[in-house]
Amino acid sequence: MRKIGISEIEDIALGAALLGAGGGGDPYIGKLVAISAVRECGPVTLLDPEEVPDDALVVPIAMMGAPTVLGEKAIGGNEYQTLYDMVSQFYGKKIYAFMPIEAGGVNSMLPIAAAARMGLPLVDADGMGRAFPELQMVTFTIGGLSATPMALTDEKGNCVIFDTITNKWTEELARAVTMSCGGSVSVCLYVMEGKILKQYAIKNIITRSEMLGRAIHNLRKNSANTPEETFFQATEGFKLFKGKIEDVLRETRGAFNFGKVVLEGIGEYKGREAYVEFQNENLVACVDGEIVGTVPDLICLVDTETFTPITTDALKYGKRVFVVGLKCFEMWRTTKGLELVGPRYFGCDTDYIPIEKRVKGGRV
Amino acid sequence: MRKIGISEIEDIALGAALLGAGGGGDPYIGKLVAISAVRECGPVTLLDPEEVPDDALVVPIAMMGAPTVLGEKAIGGNEYQTLYDMVSQFYGKKIYAFMPIEAGGVNSMLPIAAAARMGLPLVDADGMGRAFPELQMVTFTIGGLSATPMALTDEKGNCVIFDTITNKWTEELARAVTMSCGGSVSVCLYVMEGKILKQYAIKNIITRSEMLGRAIHNLRKNSANTPEETFFQATEGFKLFKGKIEDVLRETRGAFNFGKVVLEGIGEYKGREAYVEFQNENLVACVDGEIVGTVPDLICLVDTETFTPITTDALKYGKRVFVVGLKCFEMWRTTKGLELVGPRYFGCDTDYIPIEKRVKGGRV
Repeated sequence: MRKIGISEIEDIALGAALLGAGGGGDPYIGKLVAISAVRECGPVTLLDPEEVPDDALVVPIAMMGAPTVLGEKAIGGNEYQTLYDMVSQFYGKKIYAFMPIEAGGVNSMLPIAAAARMGLPLVDADGMGRAFPELQMVTFTIGGLSATPMALTDEKGNCVIFDTITNKWTEELARAVTMSCGGSVSVCLYVMEGKILKQYAIKNIITRSEMLGRAIHNLRKNSANTPEETFFQATEGFKLFKGKIEDVLRETRGAFNFGKVVLEGIGEYKGREAYVEFQNENLVACVDGEIVGTVPDLICLVDTETFTPITTDALKYGKRVFVVGLKCFEMWRTTKGLELVGPRYFGCDTDYIPIEKRVKGGRV
Repeated sequence: MRKIGISEIEDIALGAALLGAGGGGDPYIGKLVAISAVRECGPVTLLDPEEVPDDALVVPIAMMGAPTVLGEKAIGGNEYQTLYDMVSQFYGKKIYAFMPIEAGGVNSMLPIAAAARMGLPLVDADGMGRAFPELQMVTFTIGGLSATPMALTDEKGNCVIFDTITNKWTEELARAVTMSCGGSVSVCLYVMEGKILKQYAIKNIITRSEMLGRAIHNLRKNSANTPEETFFQATEGFKLFKGKIEDVLRETRGAFNFGKVVLEGIGEYKGREAYVEFQNENLVACVDGEIVGTVPDLICLVDTETFTPITTDALKYGKRVFVVGLKCFEMWRTTKGLELVGPRYFGCDTDYIPIEKRVKGGRV
């Protein structure tokens, strides 16, 4: 148990944006939401999953929708209370703590804001260890948990409760409502007891985000190494490419951001080319026609100077970026995990090969 | 209070199909669903609205979606029980009786089947007195009632509860889910106490359907008049046109059937032409370029020989039909009523003029 205040939020937002792998929302917006809540209501208590009683109700809270829309559509202010009321009424039990469902600029921050405003603790765990575009893509699905009863509300006050036969159906129906509500909504799903949390959640992910964020903030404080060397050491990242953004193709379809970013090599990659395809999150990276990384491993774009993660909705012509590969959480590499989030699910015709095997010697 | 058995169902289905004004689903399918339920579980008790206690929970039940899909997608069998459980759990109160939300081939029959299978009475009232395509189009909306909490289930077992800020938002969100579920679902909405029912419902609509149906069944038993004369007398209908279907344009969009049927005059209308536009239900009838009837009045197509109503999804080239106009329920002719279901709501650029004023002398 420890407290999360404004300086922790700064680090968490930055690190979570990296783990967002291009998705999870704009960390700047996420940070503002969390900081203003903590400023008004005080710091948030962060619980280790082991500190949660076995029968306590833990509620993941998140925004659902296209990241591009998240940035344009405000959070209304009553969503946390509305979701709290819906969930506690439906379960006939008080909520013990909130937790994030995924790591990302917005979705790591929203639970902090909700916890601050509702005076509840936050659990240091999530269901992805990164961001994924669809809501059935959580370790809880591997564990056989149901996403429903799921509560959804929009900033206008419309509320929906889903109870579906599979988590893929939850995704279908909630996505349809999200689109009708204008492209982004707030949700609580995979409501679970402490016992289940301890079995299936990805633990200490907020602390991991914080450490990654702090490392990026302090890259220039290590005088023995260049910031680049420090960045790749601190993140245990694989350098996949360094390039200038030549083109960005994007489309908002079905409340997702789909697209592709094309890169022209710079520095030691001069004369080479690469592209990264995404559905909210980056899905596959290709250098000189060869796949160098795929989901579920993390493919992240960071600024070559500041090493700030660049979300897929912030990609712009001319930006200079590193393409970084990070190993995903071990459970995603199992057969069940790859069925849910492997490259073939996303229509990418390749087997999953762990990033450390694709990238021999630590770089492409 | 009286009992509804198989012979009543035959009449109700036929009369309700006429009041469906082209929509409300295929009466043949509706009839099969109701008859098989009554055959298995016995006749249904029909209550006059005045017989319902003021604090009793009355629940309209219906299918939502494109009529074309209703005919292709089976009812699963567990929907009544599922909706019953959802509603009684949400309200913390047992359901006293079911009622229809609209008159129509399927939506007048489904409540009979639900009542039979759940062993509950049925109330002789609905919220439209005809069929309309969108769910906010009920007299209850004029009375300020909320459509929500609304329960929705599909034949696979997916369940959704809506609680929205307006009835138009209920329509938006429930329609989106209906489309994702394959185009048709079962719903309970405008759940109300007996007191409210007595104030805002359209009373004795099942009995009216039954009388209309019986009259159509018995047209040839009256030897003093031709069947045509008897039909128009019994229904108090206005004869708008008699023609052969020349063309049917249709499109299933947003879980609605949109379209237009073009007619070439026959008999006393030879040499003239007409068309009727529809959105599930018939919206506007035009003869020789002049509008002769619009929503909220009922525009119905019936076979020239059998006087069987023809739903918009059963329109076929070559069929010979009468276009019949019927006066709508008085509440629809008020300012509030016309805001909800007037011609302009449906994109038809004309003021509402009551059918009896458009059609002087009883025919066009």
